[in-house]
Amino acid sequence: MFGTTQHASRQYDQDLEDIRSSVLRMGGLVEKQVRDAMLGIDTREDHIFEGVIRADQEVNAMEITMDAACVEVIARRQPAANDLRMILAVSKAITDLERIGDEASKIARCGRDISARSISVIPVLADLRLISERALLMLQAALDAFARLDVQAAAQVISQDDEIDARFRAIQRQLITHMMEDTRLIGTAIDVTFIAKSIERIGDHAKNIAEYVIYVVKGLDIRHSTRETVEQSLNS
Amino acid sequence: MFGTTQHASRQYDQDLEDIRSSVLRMGGLVEKQVRDAMLGIDTREDHIFEGVIRADQEVNAMEITMDAACVEVIARRQPAANDLRMILAVSKAITDLERIGDEASKIARCGRDISARSISVIPVLADLRLISERALLMLQAALDAFARLDVQAAAQVISQDDEIDARFRAIQRQLITHMMEDTRLIGTAIDVTFIAKSIERIGDHAKNIAEYVIYVVKGLDIRHSTRETVEQSLNS
Repeated sequence: MFGTTQHASRQYDQDLEDIRSSVLRMGGLVEKQVRDAMLGIDTREDHIFEGVIRADQEVNAMEITMDAACVEVIARRQPAANDLRMILAVSKAITDLERIGDEASKIARCGRDISARSISVIPVLADLRLISERALLMLQAALDAFARLDVQAAAQVISQDDEIDARFRAIQRQLITHMMEDTRLIGTAIDVTFIAKSIERIGDHAKNIAEYVIYVVKGLDIRHSTRETVEQSLNS
Repeated sequence: MFGTTQHASRQYDQDLEDIRSSVLRMGGLVEKQVRDAMLGIDTREDHIFEGVIRADQEVNAMEITMDAACVEVIARRQPAANDLRMILAVSKAITDLERIGDEASKIARCGRDISARSISVIPVLADLRLISERALLMLQAALDAFARLDVQAAAQVISQDDEIDARFRAIQRQLITHMMEDTRLIGTAIDVTFIAKSIERIGDHAKNIAEYVIYVVKGLDIRHSTRETVEQSLNS
């Protein structure tokens, strides 16, 4: 009897572990999508954009499968509050990852429009590269914090979002100047604005994932808290 | 004993009902936020924008309270699969509602920027009003479908999203023309672009909420399905 219970519990631990590790797998997929979308903009190779858009189907399917897995574990295992928080956090994290996949597809679509134009100049391209690198680092750090349930690492990810937002606003201002100086750039500049907006949102989603880590570990919902409140509660 | 069980079950039903009705209450709040943000753009009264941005705190607080209520009901009641789907759908719906509140705040911030400019012309204002009315109707219909668990009504909401997307793209094209014709309009036109984008996203969130209705009732995850697949499965 003891053996059975232990076996059942080991199986349960395995279920939870599977759910958690699939977040990382899905995270790896959308990270590649974002990276490829930006690569496409650099190299102007349309087949890269098509690959990013196609990969979205796999990400979408993964969201549905993983949500079903979460429901099944809850229904079958009736988890205690802390495990339940973990499962709900997974369920929310996969929604954010799916949205990151959507943003990567949007970047790819804008990139394709830019390539199709006769004008080859892409204004603020260097800044775009930089902000996308920052957003990707945030995403990687958020996934890493999720894997290790590392509250301090998660708090650091959250604090990085302000920098991305500031960079986004700077890019927007520069684009307006470019458009005023050369109206032929307007169409491309609008596409670049949307690309920058998508990258800024990827940062938001990474921040959300980091917030779920703190929710899981501390049983604390810190969404919408000020940085001071977050720091206080983490140190308590 | 029978009496006790019935009482406990009645309390449980009440808990579920409370959770579901709070979605409608939260929906009413964000609907007002969006409506006020658009009113502010029409009337150019800054205090309306401030009200929209302030209301976001209440919406954010509601998200946290309701998520905690969902976790508590699951942990305490160990719901069967169909109730569990309802609770998870609520948990996802409130995230979408909170994001609608965010978009309303973004619209208010852009509206404030437009008001602050010396240029009083707002390009494509009539189209902006129209698309926001459509998005609000979609949101109301989605909330209504959620309240009545009406699958057919939910399917209708989902089918309306394409129209909003098409209107958004038309607005975007018009704005580019305006910017090319008069570069003094560029700053305002960029703000209007972001407002239109926010409205388009409100439509996306309404669609998500409608999809959760079908998930609850049919046990079917139709996110990312084609319209044909959706119709087939609803009729089966």
